[in-house]
Amino acid sequence: MTLPAQDLSPDKTVERALLREMRYAVEEFNCEYADVLDRGDIESWPDFFTEDGIYRLIARDNADANLPLSLMSCEGKGMLKDRAYAIAHTEMFAPRYSMHHISQIRVTGMEEGLIKAQANYIILETLVDEPTRLLQSGKYRDKFLMLGERLLLKERNCIYDTVLVPTCIVYPP
Amino acid sequence: MTLPAQDLSPDKTVERALLREMRYAVEEFNCEYADVLDRGDIESWPDFFTEDGIYRLIARDNADANLPLSLMSCEGKGMLKDRAYAIAHTEMFAPRYSMHHISQIRVTGMEEGLIKAQANYIILETLVDEPTRLLQSGKYRDKFLMLGERLLLKERNCIYDTVLVPTCIVYPP
Amino acid sequence: MTLPAQDLSPDKTVERALLREMRYAVEEFNCEYADVLDRGDIESWPDFFTEDGIYRLIARDNADANLPLSLMSCEGKGMLKDRAYAIAHTEMFAPRYSMHHISQIRVTGMEEGLIKAQANYIILETLVDEPTRLLQSGKYRDKFLMLGERLLLKERNCIYDTVLVPTCIVYPP
Repeated sequence: MTLPAQDLSPDKTVERALLREMRYAVEEFNCEYADVLDRGDIESWPDFFTEDGIYRLIARDNADANLPLSLMSCEGKGMLKDRAYAIAHTEMFAPRYSMHHISQIRVTGMEEGLIKAQANYIILETLVDEPTRLLQSGKYRDKFLMLGERLLLKERNCIYDTVLVPTCIVYPP
Repeated sequence: MTLPAQDLSPDKTVERALLREMRYAVEEFNCEYADVLDRGDIESWPDFFTEDGIYRLIARDNADANLPLSLMSCEGKGMLKDRAYAIAHTEMFAPRYSMHHISQIRVTGMEEGLIKAQANYIILETLVDEPTRLLQSGKYRDKFLMLGERLLLKERNCIYDTVLVPTCIVYPP
Repeated sequence: MTLPAQDLSPDKTVERALLREMRYAVEEFNCEYADVLDRGDIESWPDFFTEDGIYRLIARDNADANLPLSLMSCEGKGMLKDRAYAIAHTEMFAPRYSMHHISQIRVTGMEEGLIKAQANYIILETLVDEPTRLLQSGKYRDKFLMLGERLLLKERNCIYDTVLVPTCIVYPP
């Protein structure tokens, strides 16, 4: 096997290594994020965000048109905790399993000390005695803060294609 | 581009490199595993397991309640081969294509010389003249033995969300 | 944590590093490919191919039987551009969102200076006021040319399981 030609200058090599390091960290983050939500451990969900973290669920046509209306919008960990508490303790809904499948994870750059990344996601949902259905297909647009070994979401925008929401969205994508 | 702060102590760096090496190996394993099954080469399937390898297909509500009942359970390569032979030569079923999509692959630790890992999977199934359907969404909980360059499954538990099985499951997830 | 036994000879180590480097590059390529198509930027699509690049969409039963009939077949960048122009400017179809989910990416070898790779894909499609549907599940069989930092497709064969096409396929998988 021979090596395909590549720019082996120190700068390029370091940049490649850095991007890879960051993509790896984002992949690990998304695995843990999905795992926590799919276990139904909604009250741990806010811990993935910074104190001033933002979470938005925006239909793709709104996002494309730069319109701010969101299906769900939390600004700051307080609102995220409030939302998580409501889902865990006060909302009424049929029991369900959710399963995240996150692919196409990509670090697209650095901006003001934050790692910009994106990914495609599928959320599958299973209600008791029903076949598994496709709840939502969409794209994460993220900004991460790296604190030591750990990434935290400064911003997660879930831009979803599935404009027709089947009844309700309980667990956040 | 600047490097986000990271713990660069030798111990941490080696641990990160090791986990990555293992995750890479598990990813390669799962690619080959899916490829073999999706080609319909069911009789090669037992070769992914150790001699005393265990394969179980457990509904998520049973798994969550620590109840042992499995939709399918093979203990040891003999049972796996028996199962594979039955599918290849004696069972009657409509011809079908299956396609695995495995994501969220994650090495969660080492235990008694075994690599513990997990992943989310989707199995899509296509019958002649029917649209492709979602057969099963679930999570692998695995224990791998590393033999030289090669991983082997000491244990694969497929914990599936899709409790409602559409007619039958022919090829193992 | 201890290291599982591995062949640490220089040859094996270099081969592992090379395969990993190539898989990483193919993953990045597929992320960008999906992103461009899912944005609907169809006229940038031919830029992923070499001047003599080939793109084919082949039903799995045809591919398995080595029959050449394709649902779509473009040979050379000229045909790809022609196809892209038609989709962007002359064809009539209902507006739709598409979303690629590519998994199981695997470099399978080198052949005549080209990187051979494969991957599984799911294409999800959303029409206005309809739930997201599974348009196609299939497997890429690719040959890549590496030009400096950049990969280009010398050949992409999309072998699809979903033989029943729902009305039409507008954007190429």
